[in-house]
Amino acid sequence: MLSIDAARREDVPLLLSLIRELAEFEKLAHEVVATEPLLEESLFGARPVVEAVLARVSGEPAGFALYYHNYSTFLGRPGLYLEDLYVRPEHRGQGVGHSLLAYLARLAAARGCGRLEWSVLDWNRRAVEFYEAIGARPVTGWTVYRVTGEALARLAAES
Amino acid sequence: MLSIDAARREDVPLLLSLIRELAEFEKLAHEVVATEPLLEESLFGARPVVEAVLARVSGEPAGFALYYHNYSTFLGRPGLYLEDLYVRPEHRGQGVGHSLLAYLARLAAARGCGRLEWSVLDWNRRAVEFYEAIGARPVTGWTVYRVTGEALARLAAES
Repeated sequence: MLSIDAARREDVPLLLSLIRELAEFEKLAHEVVATEPLLEESLFGARPVVEAVLARVSGEPAGFALYYHNYSTFLGRPGLYLEDLYVRPEHRGQGVGHSLLAYLARLAAARGCGRLEWSVLDWNRRAVEFYEAIGARPVTGWTVYRVTGEALARLAAES
Repeated sequence: MLSIDAARREDVPLLLSLIRELAEFEKLAHEVVATEPLLEESLFGARPVVEAVLARVSGEPAGFALYYHNYSTFLGRPGLYLEDLYVRPEHRGQGVGHSLLAYLARLAAARGCGRLEWSVLDWNRRAVEFYEAIGARPVTGWTVYRVTGEALARLAAES
């Protein structure tokens, strides 16, 4: 019995543990510095910047999605950007990820968003095949650039 | 004399014309369906989803940046995502783009964002060299996937 519901404030510790599981799976656990207070502020603070939804199977947490609005200047509209999608290993292959994506597709439609987007690790072939099967296509010809840490501080110090 | 200021409601027609110039430069003009009302709603509506800043040289519009907040689950913090950065051809090579990026880096710092990110067209070597020079680095190993149009509607119709 699968249920999909918007995360609530009391779900923050569960969400953070699922984020850590996802990071382990992605071999990026060393990058997780988020804390419960930071996550709670981001989701439920005075100015929420992100939203989350939880999937449960017979009441047991099975996975989650965390998302925010991005924007297309050319469309003049917001889109929905899926920052994280995770299904616990013991619940994979049962349609949980599919149901989470369908929930987000309905939300995108309800909010007038023309696109649902996310990023996938290139080595995660199982995820790529799943995404291709539901009709998602890679956005090619663009590279994401990032400035962070000392380079960002140096840039901020310039005029 | 370069000035950099947050865009105002009366700048919407100018911004849309600059967005169209950018799309021409990117050979993507056919993708622009944004209108002044859509852009005004996105920037200055009841729930703004995006912000913009204009660069002027001696009062003449020279370029713009349009941005919103993205989010890193691993950091537990928002970042700043630069959707568009454009400098008119006659104002290139004079530090306008650099000044726009420095403005955004200061904004990122003031808002507690750990990252400033954007996407660049792979064939735009001049832009890539400029971004590398200020310390930005490509985010590799990830591919963006997108579901839109009929595939998005089909997904939304599933449970």
